[in-house]
Amino acid sequence: MAAPADFLNFVDANKDRFIERLARAVEIPSVSGDPAHRDDVFRMASFLESQLRQYGVETKAVELGSHIMEGQSLKLPPVILGRIGNDKSKKTILIYGHFDVQPAQLSDGWDFPPFQLTKDDKTDRLYGRGSSDDKGPIFGWINVLDAHHSLNKPLPVNLRFCFEGMEESGSEGLDEFILDEVKKAKDSWFDGVDAVCISDNYWLNTRTPALTYGLRGISYYKVTISGPARDLHSGVFGRMVHEPMTDLIALMSKLVSPQGDILIPGVDEMVPPADYEERQLYEKLDYAVEDVEISAGAKITICEDKASVLMGRMRSPSLSLHGIEGAFYGAGAKTVIPAKVTGKFSIRLVPPQTPENVDPLVIKYLYEEFAKLKSKNNINVDNMHGGKPWVEDYRHWSYEAAHRATEAVYKQAPDYTREGGSIPVTLTFAEALGVNVLLLPMGRGDDGAHSTNEKLDVLNFIQGTKLLGSYLHEVNAGTKAR
Amino acid sequence: MAAPADFLNFVDANKDRFIERLARAVEIPSVSGDPAHRDDVFRMASFLESQLRQYGVETKAVELGSHIMEGQSLKLPPVILGRIGNDKSKKTILIYGHFDVQPAQLSDGWDFPPFQLTKDDKTDRLYGRGSSDDKGPIFGWINVLDAHHSLNKPLPVNLRFCFEGMEESGSEGLDEFILDEVKKAKDSWFDGVDAVCISDNYWLNTRTPALTYGLRGISYYKVTISGPARDLHSGVFGRMVHEPMTDLIALMSKLVSPQGDILIPGVDEMVPPADYEERQLYEKLDYAVEDVEISAGAKITICEDKASVLMGRMRSPSLSLHGIEGAFYGAGAKTVIPAKVTGKFSIRLVPPQTPENVDPLVIKYLYEEFAKLKSKNNINVDNMHGGKPWVEDYRHWSYEAAHRATEAVYKQAPDYTREGGSIPVTLTFAEALGVNVLLLPMGRGDDGAHSTNEKLDVLNFIQGTKLLGSYLHEVNAGTKAR
Repeated sequence: MAAPADFLNFVDANKDRFIERLARAVEIPSVSGDPAHRDDVFRMASFLESQLRQYGVETKAVELGSHIMEGQSLKLPPVILGRIGNDKSKKTILIYGHFDVQPAQLSDGWDFPPFQLTKDDKTDRLYGRGSSDDKGPIFGWINVLDAHHSLNKPLPVNLRFCFEGMEESGSEGLDEFILDEVKKAKDSWFDGVDAVCISDNYWLNTRTPALTYGLRGISYYKVTISGPARDLHSGVFGRMVHEPMTDLIALMSKLVSPQGDILIPGVDEMVPPADYEERQLYEKLDYAVEDVEISAGAKITICEDKASVLMGRMRSPSLSLHGIEGAFYGAGAKTVIPAKVTGKFSIRLVPPQTPENVDPLVIKYLYEEFAKLKSKNNINVDNMHGGKPWVEDYRHWSYEAAHRATEAVYKQAPDYTREGGSIPVTLTFAEALGVNVLLLPMGRGDDGAHSTNEKLDVLNFIQGTKLLGSYLHEVNAGTKAR
Repeated sequence: MAAPADFLNFVDANKDRFIERLARAVEIPSVSGDPAHRDDVFRMASFLESQLRQYGVETKAVELGSHIMEGQSLKLPPVILGRIGNDKSKKTILIYGHFDVQPAQLSDGWDFPPFQLTKDDKTDRLYGRGSSDDKGPIFGWINVLDAHHSLNKPLPVNLRFCFEGMEESGSEGLDEFILDEVKKAKDSWFDGVDAVCISDNYWLNTRTPALTYGLRGISYYKVTISGPARDLHSGVFGRMVHEPMTDLIALMSKLVSPQGDILIPGVDEMVPPADYEERQLYEKLDYAVEDVEISAGAKITICEDKASVLMGRMRSPSLSLHGIEGAFYGAGAKTVIPAKVTGKFSIRLVPPQTPENVDPLVIKYLYEEFAKLKSKNNINVDNMHGGKPWVEDYRHWSYEAAHRATEAVYKQAPDYTREGGSIPVTLTFAEALGVNVLLLPMGRGDDGAHSTNEKLDVLNFIQGTKLLGSYLHEVNAGTKAR
C-alpha cells in the first residue's frame, strides 16, 4: 500500500511549521571541525533527541569519549540512538543521518548569513549551512514521525535511528561504536534491522530523483617538506638555500594532470575501463554536461560527452589538491620563505581500489620523486584518513520500495546513480549488519553541500518528506505482497 | 677626529636606559600590513617624534593621504621628518629608517611574546618584533642624539631625518613625497644633504661588521586561476571539472628548480656570469657556508662552496614561492576544490634586471604555459609591486668614514657586502638627491628579520650606537682633513 492520503495532506498542510523547525536546527552552528563550536554540536544533539522523544521514540545519547583537536582535548559529540515499534510482522529499517555541519562564514562569500535559514521567495529555496547536508533530510524523518504521531497513525515499519555529530570530521568513534553495538549479545539497538536507509547525498541533476547504489572511497594525504628552523626572508636567503615550497610545489605538480589523470603509477591502472554495456548505463541517465556546468557555475568540464563526464565522477578515481598548510595564505605581498609546508590532497577511490592497496603506491611515489629533486630538505608523508568504496545490489526490495515511492511522489522513475563522494558509514553498516543499504537523497545536485550558499529547495524538503514516509509504506506494502 | 671618549662612555653608562627605551618602542605593535594595527603605527610615529623633539630636533609629521587595505580605506602613517644643525662648515647627513614592523603572533612559533622586548641573559640578546628591523637602529640614532644633548656637545654634522611607517607594506606614498620634497623651490627638508645613511640591513655573519653597497631589486607577482563560481566538493566534482589548484600548482612548478635556477626563459640569462676577479671578491669575505646553516637553522645550502653560496644572494636573481591565497590552509582534512586560487611569488633582481625588463618575460611565460595546460579555467597575472636593484660607489668619503668608525668601535675592518634584500628607498634617495647612499647595518646575519624570534644582540645595540655616532664624527674629521 502506498502512503495514505492523510499523511501526504498533513505534510502539505504543515509546510511552514516544518520549515520553521528546520530553521531552528540551522541556527545551531554545529560545526564539528571547530573546537569553538563543540558546545553547539552538543546543543544540536539535545535538540534532535528532544524532537525524537516528542513523537514517542525511545532514545539514548551514547558517549564516545574524547579526542584531540587543534591541541585541545575535547569530548566527542554523542551518537543519538532511537527506536520505535517492535512489531514482528513489520520490517525494521535503520535510519542514519548526521547533525553536524561543515564550517561556514559570511566572509567565505555567502550571500546570506550561513547560520540562519533564509527562504528566498523568488527561487523558493532555503539557504543555510546544513539545510541540505544533512539537517534537511534528518528533519524530513522528524516530519514523518510528527505526521504519524499527530494523525495517531501507526508507522508502517519498525524504525531505528542512528544520528551522529562527527560526520564532517571523519566520524571519529562511530565505526567502533557500531561494531561494538552489533556484537552485543542482547538488547543491541540494531537487533533485527532488515535494511538501512541513508539520506545524505544528492540527485544527479536538478530534475530527476535518484536512488544511489555506489560511493567512492577516499584516501586523504598530507606531504610535509621542512628545512629551515624558522621562516626565512626571501631577500636574505633566496638562492642560498633549498626552499621547502619549491620542493612541495614540484611534488604536488606530479600527482594529477590538468585533465584529471592521476600520475601516480598504478593508481588509475587498477580500474578496468568501461565496456560498451557499462557505458550505456551512463548514457541513459537523465543528465547533460550543462548540469555540471550549472552546478559548478562555469563551463569547466574536463570533456564534452555526457557518459565520460559521468564516469569521471561515478566509476573513476579522482585526485584533488586541496591546499597548503604553513605557507603564506593572506592577502598582500609577504616575502617569506616558509620553513615548513604541508600539501593536502586526496584520492577518491573506486573498486577494486582501497586505502590499503593505494596508499603504498602514493607514499612510495612521493618519496621517489622527492629523491629526484636532490633537495636537502626533509619529507614526511602521512595518510590522514581513508575509507573503502562501496557498491550495492540495487535489485533489492528496499530499492524496489524506494523506486515505487519515488514514482508515487515525483511521478517519474528515479535515476540509479553512483556517487563521487564518500559516506564511510555506509560501508560500515553494510559490512557490520550484513544487510542492504539504500541511499535515498532528498536534495538536488546544485545544493552546494560543503560550499558557500548551501541550499535546499522547498519542494525537495516537502516532497522529500513525503518520499521518506512513502518509502516506509512501500516497504510495508512490499513485505505484505510477498 | 674619532668619536670623543665622553660620548662612548655615555653610551656604555646608559645601556640599561637605552634598552628600556627600545622596549617601549617594541611594545607598540606598529604592524603596517594589518588594518587592525594602523592606530599603533600612528602611536609609534608620535612616540618617535616626541623622542626627536626632546633632543632639540625640529620635526614635522607629513600626512601622505589614504589608501585601501583589505577593502578598508585607511589613513597612511605619516613620514616623520627631522632637522638639527645648519652649520655651513659641516656636512649634512640624511638618516632614513622605518618605525613599522612585520606581523607577528606568538602562535607563529615565537618563544617569546613578540611585542614585548625580552632580554635573554644567557645569550645577551633582545628578542622582539622590530628589535633589529628597524626599531633598534632608529633608537640607535636617538641614543646618539640623547648622548650629545645630555653632554651638551654639538653634533659633528648637520642631521636630517626621514622616518617612515609603511616600509613593510611597500612604502606606499614615500617615493612621491621624496620626489616632491626634493623639487621644492625653497625650504625643502632635504636641502643641502651631502650623503644618506640607512641602517636597515645586517652583517653577513655574526662576527664581522659590514658596509653594504648593493641591494637586489624585487618584482612581486600574483597569478590567479579561477573557474567554478564557488568552492566545490571533491567527491561530487572530482574528475568532472578542471580544478584551479591543479592548474596553479602546475604553473608554479615551472618557475624555479629545487636548485634555485629560474626557469622563466631570459631571466637568469640577463645576468653575466662572474669572472675570476669578481669571484675573488666573494672568496675574501669573512664568511663560511656554516654561517648560512646557522642562520637558517639547518644544513640546506644549495651548494657547498662559499663563493657560490654568497653570489646566490648578492649577485644572482632568486625566485621564491611564498604561498597560495584562496586554497585550504588550515589544519585538518578539508575535501574542497577551491574555486579561485592565487599563487604568490617574487623575483629578487640584480643589475641589469629591472621590473620593467623582467615583468614582460614573466607574464608572457605564465600565459604561454597556462595555454599548454589546455584548461577551461581562467588565468590572471598581476605585478603587485617592484623596485630596481642598486649598486653604490664604495670608494666615497661617506664609506671611508664608516670604515674608520667600524675599525675604531669594533677593532676590525668591515666586510663590503651586497644585500639580497630590497630597500627601495635607497634607490629613490640616490636618484632623487644625486648623492652617495651608505648602508650601515647594526644587526647580525642571524637576527631573523621578518621571521619568528627576531632579535638584536645587546652588543650590537650598544656598539652599534657607538658606531653610528662615530660615523658622524669620522665624516666631520674627513671633511676637515680635505
